[in-house]
Amino acid sequence: MSDRKQFRDLASPEAARDAIASLDLTPDPETVPLSEARGRVLAERVDAGLDVPGFDRASVDGYAVRGRDTFGADEADPTAFDLVGTVHAGTAPDVVVGEGDAAEISTGAVMPDGADAVVMVERTEERRTDGDVQGVAVRTAVAPGDNVMLAGTDIAAGTRALGPGTRLTPREIGLLSALGIDAVPVRGRPTVGIVSTGDELVRPGGELQSEAGQIYDVNSYTIAAGVEEAGGDAELYPHAGDDYEEMERLLLEAAAECDLVLSSGSTSASAVDVIYRVIEERGELLLHGVAVKPGKPMLVGELGGGAYVGLPGYPVSALTIFRTFVAPAIREASGLPEPETATVRGRMAVRERYGEGRLRLMPAGLVTDADGDTLVYPVDKGSGATTSLVDADGVVAVDPDTEYLGQGDEVEVQLFSPDVRPPTLLAVGEDDPALSRVLDRLRSPRFLPVGSREGLRRLRGGVPDVAVVAGPTDREVDSVDLGGWTREWGLVVPTGNPDGVEGLGDLVDRDLGFVNRSPDAGLRSSLDAAVDELAAERNATRSELTDAIRGFAVGTKGFESPARAVARGDADAGVSLRATAESLGLGFVPVDTESVRVRASPDRVEKPGVEELAAGLDDLDAVTDGLAGYNPD
Amino acid sequence: MSDRKQFRDLASPEAARDAIASLDLTPDPETVPLSEARGRVLAERVDAGLDVPGFDRASVDGYAVRGRDTFGADEADPTAFDLVGTVHAGTAPDVVVGEGDAAEISTGAVMPDGADAVVMVERTEERRTDGDVQGVAVRTAVAPGDNVMLAGTDIAAGTRALGPGTRLTPREIGLLSALGIDAVPVRGRPTVGIVSTGDELVRPGGELQSEAGQIYDVNSYTIAAGVEEAGGDAELYPHAGDDYEEMERLLLEAAAECDLVLSSGSTSASAVDVIYRVIEERGELLLHGVAVKPGKPMLVGELGGGAYVGLPGYPVSALTIFRTFVAPAIREASGLPEPETATVRGRMAVRERYGEGRLRLMPAGLVTDADGDTLVYPVDKGSGATTSLVDADGVVAVDPDTEYLGQGDEVEVQLFSPDVRPPTLLAVGEDDPALSRVLDRLRSPRFLPVGSREGLRRLRGGVPDVAVVAGPTDREVDSVDLGGWTREWGLVVPTGNPDGVEGLGDLVDRDLGFVNRSPDAGLRSSLDAAVDELAAERNATRSELTDAIRGFAVGTKGFESPARAVARGDADAGVSLRATAESLGLGFVPVDTESVRVRASPDRVEKPGVEELAAGLDDLDAVTDGLAGYNPD
Repeated sequence: MSDRKQFRDLASPEAARDAIASLDLTPDPETVPLSEARGRVLAERVDAGLDVPGFDRASVDGYAVRGRDTFGADEADPTAFDLVGTVHAGTAPDVVVGEGDAAEISTGAVMPDGADAVVMVERTEERRTDGDVQGVAVRTAVAPGDNVMLAGTDIAAGTRALGPGTRLTPREIGLLSALGIDAVPVRGRPTVGIVSTGDELVRPGGELQSEAGQIYDVNSYTIAAGVEEAGGDAELYPHAGDDYEEMERLLLEAAAECDLVLSSGSTSASAVDVIYRVIEERGELLLHGVAVKPGKPMLVGELGGGAYVGLPGYPVSALTIFRTFVAPAIREASGLPEPETATVRGRMAVRERYGEGRLRLMPAGLVTDADGDTLVYPVDKGSGATTSLVDADGVVAVDPDTEYLGQGDEVEVQLFSPDVRPPTLLAVGEDDPALSRVLDRLRSPRFLPVGSREGLRRLRGGVPDVAVVAGPTDREVDSVDLGGWTREWGLVVPTGNPDGVEGLGDLVDRDLGFVNRSPDAGLRSSLDAAVDELAAERNATRSELTDAIRGFAVGTKGFESPARAVARGDADAGVSLRATAESLGLGFVPVDTESVRVRASPDRVEKPGVEELAAGLDDLDAVTDGLAGYNPD
Repeated sequence: MSDRKQFRDLASPEAARDAIASLDLTPDPETVPLSEARGRVLAERVDAGLDVPGFDRASVDGYAVRGRDTFGADEADPTAFDLVGTVHAGTAPDVVVGEGDAAEISTGAVMPDGADAVVMVERTEERRTDGDVQGVAVRTAVAPGDNVMLAGTDIAAGTRALGPGTRLTPREIGLLSALGIDAVPVRGRPTVGIVSTGDELVRPGGELQSEAGQIYDVNSYTIAAGVEEAGGDAELYPHAGDDYEEMERLLLEAAAECDLVLSSGSTSASAVDVIYRVIEERGELLLHGVAVKPGKPMLVGELGGGAYVGLPGYPVSALTIFRTFVAPAIREASGLPEPETATVRGRMAVRERYGEGRLRLMPAGLVTDADGDTLVYPVDKGSGATTSLVDADGVVAVDPDTEYLGQGDEVEVQLFSPDVRPPTLLAVGEDDPALSRVLDRLRSPRFLPVGSREGLRRLRGGVPDVAVVAGPTDREVDSVDLGGWTREWGLVVPTGNPDGVEGLGDLVDRDLGFVNRSPDAGLRSSLDAAVDELAAERNATRSELTDAIRGFAVGTKGFESPARAVARGDADAGVSLRATAESLGLGFVPVDTESVRVRASPDRVEKPGVEELAAGLDDLDAVTDGLAGYNPD
């Protein structure tokens, strides 16, 4: 069916790095105003073009004199000077100091001609005649240069001030200011064009036709942000379809305007094939396919004299390949080293098997234990999941020869961004609107809505800090209960309950379309328990009942999904919380209440993020306020 | 003389922090386009407004069927299906799958109505009649949902996607894209107005009248860059002089337009007094004077309903107070935590005494030893020196009770910027044009041009990695010679040598204005040695000769300073390198050559930065190429 190209001779990751390194991404240097120079990298050495200070400056308040005239002066035998004038800071002296002369002078003022030293005011005394100051007695000797900051003492003209490659932070901006420099020669930022491909992609903000299989374009914005973070300027090009002529025109336009062109976005085989042909026919293909997982379909080439790299289509794969192979090249071209914060070390929280014989770039999440040590766990929802982007913090490169990573093995995580911060709390389990409110009050928590059953399974696995569990559970997991609430659940029906649904029995007895939750949801467990009760009442088997409910077997993922399906008119009833039904303005048929408990791993109870969560659970009245059918326990 | 205000009742640093915290800097949230959202902080929670994927999606290539129709099918007994159509990715299905029907489907395509599962193509076989495909045989049973990614499996509508306070990195941008969000509610960036004061200040790029005591405005640009780094938007206001009316107008204008107003720039007592009066009369003065060094003259107040902080005038003091008290408040207002990289720990390289009874914010430099451990040393050139800005990496807060920091004591350094990186090499000593070229080839070296004598003294003190030493020296310091060169020196004279200067004797015998280097310079040591020789020849004392040379006693700091003074017509001759004289197009009277040696501290020879330097010294032919009078050793 698919004609998808097979990549038989995969290049090594080193060859891919070399191929990208062989491309020239480095733009010409440019000159930017000082006010925009922060974060940029000096393109050339800056020597001081002037002396700082630019004049011999009095460094104390006192009297400017010729030092030699003070020789011999001491407390017992002061020397008398004639007072010839005053020099204030910020004004040009209008006095010349000759032999035996003194000029009053302020700190920071220009030394008047003739003077070569300043006597501190404390070592002098004015001489008055009839109340008018006529002269000054100096009670100490000063050498030429005393209490004078000579021109150029801070930095002298001709001195090397800042070297090429210096990153400009506020302090370097300060030194450049002192030198009077308002235009700074800096390394250029490489312009990176991003061509996203695939007819199915729609730009965020545009109208999405899901029924025609359209999806929003994730990669263009993700990669554009990554480009900017690495020191490049991103340029988004309009979507290209799978048409050769159009793709060729667009890629050549981007190549002419940019230092590097990235294509990204489509998982469509035909779009990838079209790009491949354009590069091969109009440019030079250096490399096609790399022995890494993910990212096999990576392309490296030249087009119109510029550099080209084709990224995989799945978002996590695209960001992983970008982070591993492309971002370093952009940093190199812009002169910005990778921040140290872009890499963290930690220990594997679980054992992870692997053995495919090629480099694996494993998406990984971070969690800290109670001692603050970093644990690393694999995140694998399938590369197509965009939520992996935020569930994973970075990537662990696992060697082709590594068959498994043992629990406790130390690994290095290349963060997706130097600004990524590991979560303060890792919670998993049942999605719930009250829980969301609790999370909103915490600093950078991470919550994975995997459902109650899966949440408990993971808690037992030792990775998360807490699991949020709703409804009846059949798992025993050692944990500490941090608190919880109850929530009313039942059947969501269209507004006004047009079918007159009264309870579960109607789903069994009548031909109503039903929308269920997935088996991991606590809501589903409560529903299953209620069905069991009904079966017992009717002396029927459970499956006799569930087979009779149209849609019972297919579960949806979100806690609002059944209600939203009813709201769209796709179903007659669904399992739901009262709070959800009311917030969406739908009808609700109550069945029961279930309890939601927040359970912590015993060895994480002392962790600051868990303590913060526990404190948040003390205020459940506020958290559940306005949520219909909710009660703090 | 000066009327400078005395601050007798100094507030504690904690009171200063509290006063700033009591001011409201937090701007209103705003909405920004997704393409500009990187680095911003979410102002509110973002819930998924739609399912991702938005449709039930085939996750393999194969045939879409009703799962129940495949029950019982296996390899031995395939079930036959009618082929009713084809669904491609990115298009709306135009087929309905009824009982016994199958539709060909591609990965990523929309599941057609009626179908609830996909059979992988590998487990099917086409049935043909006369070459036309009529149907398909299915050799396996699939349950409803098999090989289908249900709508909302990645993220379901109604699910909490990102919490308030989330910093937006590329991956969060990706998730927002997937949700179709192109306008993001983010925390506002506080607008910080910077009013620089003092008639003597000139904006970089402007014409400087040094003879009138003018200096370039360093603080405005330094602090503006610091504001941007902390997550604020800086707004520079025109210089205000010391006039009350003008200052009042400017401060009120800035207060009306900004969340915070900082004044900074002047060390002028009258300017500070004028600001004080404006705040007191038109706003509310919360605090005047803080018991910290530097920064005593700090002001905190309110003006026009906005916040006001007055920073000290000296650049290092201003940046130190900004870093310590103001930047945290801007970060808080913008929702950005301080990066972990903004603080490093290290051990004191030297003993440092202190005992003034108030908090000292000690500017400190960083150097690593051969093991890569961080050593910290005080940088104190006087707060007025702008070069301290780049010679220091940050600030160590020394408690009022601390009388001294012992060598080896651990201290915490608050870096001036999270982007500050400790130098790879700390070199001190003789400034030299060939050395500058060597430094240009290294990654982020630091060189302090303290002269040969002081360089050797510091090398013995154990802080720097290497000292660069020129001319004769009288100090014995244990060190490893990494290489060096010779340079020709002599007297720089105006172009064409109008006075016909032939050598040192002319300086003694004739009334010529001379410009010397400071006693720490190797060039000065060579000159002194030559004067001694001349004195011996003439049977004179050294001071008989030097007293006869006008200007001999006053040394200049930069190696080009004497030549530049001659070029300006300020002197008839100066001590200089031939290379300098030629590069400035001046005349040159040779006296001798001197050697320049690069000497490493024995315990730093293995340090990577020193090894890099040593490697750079292997290529001295290139380094000295074109420098007149230079020869590699």
